[in-house]
Amino acid sequence: MVDVTNKPVVYREATASGEIVLRPETVRRIREGLVEKGNVEAVASVAAIMAAKDSSKIIPLAHPIPITGVDVSFDYTENSVRLRVTVKTKAETGVEMDALAGVMAGLLAIWDMVKAYEKDEKGQYPVTAIRNVVVESKFKGEA
Amino acid sequence: MVDVTNKPVVYREATASGEIVLRPETVRRIREGLVEKGNVEAVASVAAIMAAKDSSKIIPLAHPIPITGVDVSFDYTENSVRLRVTVKTKAETGVEMDALAGVMAGLLAIWDMVKAYEKDEKGQYPVTAIRNVVVESKFKGEA
Amino acid sequence: MVDVTNKPVVYREATASGEIVLRPETVRRIREGLVEKGNVEAVASVAAIMAAKDSSKIIPLAHPIPITGVDVSFDYTENSVRLRVTVKTKAETGVEMDALAGVMAGLLAIWDMVKAYEKDEKGQYPVTAIRNVVVESKFKGEA
Amino acid sequence: MVDVTNKPVVYREATASGEIVLRPETVRRIREGLVEKGNVEAVASVAAIMAAKDSSKIIPLAHPIPITGVDVSFDYTENSVRLRVTVKTKAETGVEMDALAGVMAGLLAIWDMVKAYEKDEKGQYPVTAIRNVVVESKFKGEA
Amino acid sequence: MVDVTNKPVVYREATASGEIVLRPETVRRIREGLVEKGNVEAVASVAAIMAAKDSSKIIPLAHPIPITGVDVSFDYTENSVRLRVTVKTKAETGVEMDALAGVMAGLLAIWDMVKAYEKDEKGQYPVTAIRNVVVESKFKGEA
Amino acid sequence: MVDVTNKPVVYREATASGEIVLRPETVRRIREGLVEKGNVEAVASVAAIMAAKDSSKIIPLAHPIPITGVDVSFDYTENSVRLRVTVKTKAETGVEMDALAGVMAGLLAIWDMVKAYEKDEKGQYPVTAIRNVVVESKFKGEA
Repeated sequence: MVDVTNKPVVYREATASGEIVLRPETVRRIREGLVEKGNVEAVASVAAIMAAKDSSKIIPLAHPIPITGVDVSFDYTENSVRLRVTVKTKAETGVEMDALAGVMAGLLAIWDMVKAYEKDEKGQYPVTAIRNVVVESKFKGEA
Repeated sequence: MVDVTNKPVVYREATASGEIVLRPETVRRIREGLVEKGNVEAVASVAAIMAAKDSSKIIPLAHPIPITGVDVSFDYTENSVRLRVTVKTKAETGVEMDALAGVMAGLLAIWDMVKAYEKDEKGQYPVTAIRNVVVESKFKGEA
Repeated sequence: MVDVTNKPVVYREATASGEIVLRPETVRRIREGLVEKGNVEAVASVAAIMAAKDSSKIIPLAHPIPITGVDVSFDYTENSVRLRVTVKTKAETGVEMDALAGVMAGLLAIWDMVKAYEKDEKGQYPVTAIRNVVVESKFKGEA
Repeated sequence: MVDVTNKPVVYREATASGEIVLRPETVRRIREGLVEKGNVEAVASVAAIMAAKDSSKIIPLAHPIPITGVDVSFDYTENSVRLRVTVKTKAETGVEMDALAGVMAGLLAIWDMVKAYEKDEKGQYPVTAIRNVVVESKFKGEA
Repeated sequence: MVDVTNKPVVYREATASGEIVLRPETVRRIREGLVEKGNVEAVASVAAIMAAKDSSKIIPLAHPIPITGVDVSFDYTENSVRLRVTVKTKAETGVEMDALAGVMAGLLAIWDMVKAYEKDEKGQYPVTAIRNVVVESKFKGEA
Repeated sequence: MVDVTNKPVVYREATASGEIVLRPETVRRIREGLVEKGNVEAVASVAAIMAAKDSSKIIPLAHPIPITGVDVSFDYTENSVRLRVTVKTKAETGVEMDALAGVMAGLLAIWDMVKAYEKDEKGQYPVTAIRNVVVESKFKGEA
């Protein structure tokens, strides 16, 4: 694990986002609150926040960082949901991996909640896909 | 959490895969073993296996499943790495979420290991992206 | 840890519940969806489900049990919320501790979300309390 | 998750406590060291300390806080045990949720260790209950 | 991770043990209950049990195994403590790694509790060492 | 848990090491990359780093410490592998337990990967042992 001991503890922020492609009918269900497994945005937000907090367990060589803030938001198109996660901290190293871990876990939580609507009659997923997972921006404060 | 108590315990297998887009120079470094943080395939494989085992912690409403096998493999193009994870078990419910969690963690582990080669002079990631994360196939044995 | 190796694997179910006492104004906020930190029922449900799945980490001598179902529900009085958790499995030992862990985590999640409305001007909690946490019933199927 | 990035890092302390109601015979067993599963105070203390350290995993929207001290103590009446947990840190936000998580896990650990003495002939718990879980006090140092 | 899907689910048991070398004065403190941090055997037992349950998180390629019993015992010489852990399950694969993980965590818990008595005036550990960690026996039942 | 709240946050470093005794044939396989389960050094390094990060979960009374660097190295004799772990941080308390947890997990990961070559025809381990696990040095910077 890279030694960051001597890097300055400064304000750091990173925003990552990613998209899950779904059947239009599934997107409608999410937006109208008709997913039987529960409130999709709430559960995906929790998944994102918990993964951002736990990213040093999910990513083997990532540093443990005491995160001080996480924001989660959702955008919709007819056939996709975009999840955006912003992570904030004061630490020796950046938090883009923590933001990405949040995005990934949040998107997986969405997938998990809508499995029943996405599978075809053979139990396969012809439509569902995660794509365009990126770090939108990183910011590092002055020492 | 959906009640699967009365579903039969049968053989179940799922294969998921996903792709990380990188600079060609970074892909070369991975293939030639020139990544300073270590052996990328080995670390990404461990990340994938551990996340597949731990998926019910990462995905809030997923069932805990005693996984009995995980395979991880890598394919390369000039500017991307595709990670494929197959999970096997005998259980009441399918393991596609476990395979997807493995893919996600493995791709994040790759990203984390090559950060230094992917960032531009402003610390941003103009190239790096995860895309095309899908469930390739699911299989369910006879009861 | 007690040896349960030779106990039969049978259907097991347990329901636990517990109550958090809150200011009436806070209960109203929860019911009307006016809690700034988010959807209280959704977050508390996730906390309960995750703790029920993870109870063998929280309770040192508890057996790890592959839970197959969790139900969470909420009841309100003017100044309290009752959380009820039912856990189901097929296993060698009962799941009342898993249900209790779910109740505890769910009630703590509620407390955490409404801290701002419960604290007095000195930052203390003159009203908030958890009480009446019980195992309502256990059921064990035939071998 | 609430943004606490700009709050001052100051000394913070919180004491929480809670009570488990037991059969008088069970309380006697605990006090006389006659519980077959082991030393109840020692195991409950470990459970409390570990949950206080891990509270940001148990409580979805809680901040991860690097705890610097935990004290655990026990008081007895004829038919109950009261567990008190004090958590100390230097951090941006308070530690009452961490103290509460410690109390909850400690009380569950007690329950788990005395199950055999508390169950009736039908496997139910007519007596056992957790009650009066409160934050006794919070303290915040000067910036 | 090795595929064990098709191995039979049979009774499996493994016993591992290991030794921590300590100053004679420290061993006396442990045996006489004079360690300020608490009851050493109780805390080490909990550490051993929890690590045995969690070994698939500690050991990257180990299978998750639903453990059904753990026994922990202690033997003393003038300048050492031997910790022995027996793990039992019904599973597709053996539990010696789980027993070893229990031994390791238990010995580390002992070390942690007696640090103050083992360090010299420069804060170093001239005496303390863990040695002779072995799998004493494995047993596999009939299919 | 010992109160370290008022100890100064200074640079701290600890190096621990330990040895696993193996059949000479197994040591050769590791060095020549002929272990079927994968790259032994890479997997053991990841295990060591993750356990060092997670030591406050493995060791009940250890403080959570935000580690800022971990180095792992390997030395070989004809019939043994020595694993050395150095942990760095800026914190109120030392990191020797974190380094020891890393050593232990790394050695267990090695054992797990070479089980097939170490077991005799009865499934026992007549040769394999962990020994000589020590804290080589601790260093504490000026306040």
